[in-house]
Amino acid sequence: MMNNSGKTAQARHDRRTQALLDAQFELQEAKKHAVLVVIAGSDGAGKGAVANRLYDRLDAHYVETLYYGAPSEDERLRPPFWRYWRDLPAKGRIGLVLGGWHHAPLLDRATGEMDEDEFKTALADINSFEQMLIAEGVALVKIWLAADEKKARKRLEALREEDGALRRPVVVEWDEIDTKKERKRLAKAGLEMAEASVGGAPWTVIPADDENQRDEAAAQALLEALTRLNAKTGKPTAKMTPAGKAPVKFPVPQLDLSLKADEATYAEELDALQDRLTQATTGKRFRKRGLVLVFEGNDAAGKGGAIRRVRAALDPRQFRVHGTSAPSDEEKARPYLWRFWRNLPRRGHVAIFDRSWYGRVLVERVEGFATETDWRRAYGEIVDFERQIAEDDFAVVKFWLSISLDEQMRRFKAREETAIKRYKITPEDWRNRDKWAAYETAMAEMIARTSTDFAPWTLVEAEDKYFARLKVLRTIVARLERFD
Amino acid sequence: MMNNSGKTAQARHDRRTQALLDAQFELQEAKKHAVLVVIAGSDGAGKGAVANRLYDRLDAHYVETLYYGAPSEDERLRPPFWRYWRDLPAKGRIGLVLGGWHHAPLLDRATGEMDEDEFKTALADINSFEQMLIAEGVALVKIWLAADEKKARKRLEALREEDGALRRPVVVEWDEIDTKKERKRLAKAGLEMAEASVGGAPWTVIPADDENQRDEAAAQALLEALTRLNAKTGKPTAKMTPAGKAPVKFPVPQLDLSLKADEATYAEELDALQDRLTQATTGKRFRKRGLVLVFEGNDAAGKGGAIRRVRAALDPRQFRVHGTSAPSDEEKARPYLWRFWRNLPRRGHVAIFDRSWYGRVLVERVEGFATETDWRRAYGEIVDFERQIAEDDFAVVKFWLSISLDEQMRRFKAREETAIKRYKITPEDWRNRDKWAAYETAMAEMIARTSTDFAPWTLVEAEDKYFARLKVLRTIVARLERFD
Repeated sequence: MMNNSGKTAQARHDRRTQALLDAQFELQEAKKHAVLVVIAGSDGAGKGAVANRLYDRLDAHYVETLYYGAPSEDERLRPPFWRYWRDLPAKGRIGLVLGGWHHAPLLDRATGEMDEDEFKTALADINSFEQMLIAEGVALVKIWLAADEKKARKRLEALREEDGALRRPVVVEWDEIDTKKERKRLAKAGLEMAEASVGGAPWTVIPADDENQRDEAAAQALLEALTRLNAKTGKPTAKMTPAGKAPVKFPVPQLDLSLKADEATYAEELDALQDRLTQATTGKRFRKRGLVLVFEGNDAAGKGGAIRRVRAALDPRQFRVHGTSAPSDEEKARPYLWRFWRNLPRRGHVAIFDRSWYGRVLVERVEGFATETDWRRAYGEIVDFERQIAEDDFAVVKFWLSISLDEQMRRFKAREETAIKRYKITPEDWRNRDKWAAYETAMAEMIARTSTDFAPWTLVEAEDKYFARLKVLRTIVARLERFD
Repeated sequence: MMNNSGKTAQARHDRRTQALLDAQFELQEAKKHAVLVVIAGSDGAGKGAVANRLYDRLDAHYVETLYYGAPSEDERLRPPFWRYWRDLPAKGRIGLVLGGWHHAPLLDRATGEMDEDEFKTALADINSFEQMLIAEGVALVKIWLAADEKKARKRLEALREEDGALRRPVVVEWDEIDTKKERKRLAKAGLEMAEASVGGAPWTVIPADDENQRDEAAAQALLEALTRLNAKTGKPTAKMTPAGKAPVKFPVPQLDLSLKADEATYAEELDALQDRLTQATTGKRFRKRGLVLVFEGNDAAGKGGAIRRVRAALDPRQFRVHGTSAPSDEEKARPYLWRFWRNLPRRGHVAIFDRSWYGRVLVERVEGFATETDWRRAYGEIVDFERQIAEDDFAVVKFWLSISLDEQMRRFKAREETAIKRYKITPEDWRNRDKWAAYETAMAEMIARTSTDFAPWTLVEAEDKYFARLKVLRTIVARLERFD
């Protein structure tokens, strides 16, 4: 028989379950946000059990578990965050994260593999990633299950002895921690992480010794996040230009468009550069590296032609050319960088992006497809993205191909005279000419804000196609030959 | 200086390039078909070079190379054809396949790993796969490069000595073949494969000793395929019921819907079964297996409730529940089974499909969303699909949950009385009741045609929810406990 307080608790539990289901349904219908519930904490505190209880109280059709153990072969061939990006749930869905991105840094710090400074950097990376998710409409519910150490260890031992006979998944994250010193360092690192996350996506620390209270607290944390999300009508639209501060004007880089290649030696030079590119992208050394190429520039500046000359030097098994057309609905349901993360090459491979993530700060800015808040934060997000690729030993080489308005007019007219449909000039192409100045402003700011040591922009004088192609190839080859 | 015949050849080459680009543009605009160009043949015959020359003559933005070497970890954890499915290009695109699905059987036959009978079975599997692709609008251009053996070997050696210094990718498929006996067996197996493919997707054998002729012949084969595709206005719509032959009527299975579980012992039995399910899906043994569950049945038959009881016994890291709602546009651009292939679980995991690929022969048949030709061929395609999963040591367990029209009415009304939005009964649900007989006919044929030894249907009397849940769990547990 249940006593009165038991009945009250049961009623509260049922009401909360009902509210959770309703809130999940709204989330799913609106398809404006995704939710990631990160479940972390001491081993034996009940991470798996909390996930299971959440499943019991949700519609499992729209829930997925994102569990990360030791990286697989496919994962090792890409930057560390690739797997978290790959698995981002679509809007309307809830992901339960076990063994997430916090795990490796904490473990490495505890074992001493990482020193204090590296750990701080790792925390900063996590914060950037999470800030970006939040800004893109992914809500984060980060639960840290805090258990009495001795009790947790006992519970864990008991669970293990049962050998999976009971429905109690055992999520073990900290098996490698066994000395007192490591445990102490883990606790300290955990505290630091918690402090670093305040103001961003803070951890909710939940006492885990009482199972019922633990599960209710986790459910309540999710419910509150869902309620907040459902109360929002959309993404924030506030402009971010600080009051009283005029936007910074970046000088438009001035290029010498009269630069020309010597026609007599062009073919020969091209051939020699292509040979060097082949050489640099084959063989054992390149297997541990990779190459990410970005082509941006004025319409009709000759991106396609330059890409053809690069591609021809590559083994067809190792490259892919990505045109950046309208995103698919699976891409639209996720943060804008997702489609580029999913197209990152494996090690030993080359990805060529014909237009790229820079669309965010170029066309989306100029055409007003992104709010100012969104394109402004994109600079930092893009730099972060490229840094992660570069740190994973991929070369990131970016080109801006420039032509003059006059030359563009000549090329448009030439295309119109060619009968071939696929060279059709659209009314949009003509309209873009009117926005030349707006694109120049956007370009100037982009170059200034996203040219980094690890992923610098190369401006290409493209009035002469031959000159442009040789410069592109020369730049790539020089960069690859710098790999030691 | 070019002589006259050289000039004519060059002009022909240019015309063909132009025609190829135009045809590719049409393919890409129409987005009705995808093309796979399988490039195979002797080592040294120029497989990589042919791929490269095709890239030179196409718009690389809509081309991708599908290269298969030794399977990766992710690939080994799924049925062998999974990787070919995963990579199917979207409609409008061209895939160049190197080291495709023909490779492993040929190699295994040549080395004697496979005997004659196994090889024949493998060829039949390839044919089924290719037939299905074709029926789904994927055109296959299969090119076999036949080279004089000695010349090819010499060319290969020369290429290898160049050590990747020139733009000549070396695609080596038959490195493991080195005895005379094996070479002979490879040649014989190749012939058999060519013969077996006639009438289906035949190989175009191209003499490879003259590079120019070889490349032109390959381009011509692709051009012809594109021209044929572009001439088609859509998918074939012809009905397939043979004239003068009345469609077979399959008897509707009669179930005893009065079956009930004992309410007094239900909770206890459920608990015991869930424990056994946990036991069967944890531990070392299951890591080499996997489980694919399919739930179909009348609307409101209790699929969701049964799934909940199964799910609750599983580790949240190892399962995913797939609701089968409208396909995404990436899914629509590929054969209908693609979305299910992409959701197949890794080994050691469980996929629960709430409605499934059987939609093709149920709702799509009844509502006329698929042509008769399409849903008729689906029976064989589905059996093939499930056989491949089962042969890879996954258990495939399929349930049809049955209730009476009266019980359905009671449940609909009960749902309408519940205030919760997510239980909303749609007008469609009511309309489906009018089609009860049509669904029964479709169900009867489906059960008859797709119940196999390796993936049998279990019919579940679901008038009593408790009975249904216990039967579902009992069936799964019994199947898993049969794993040796």
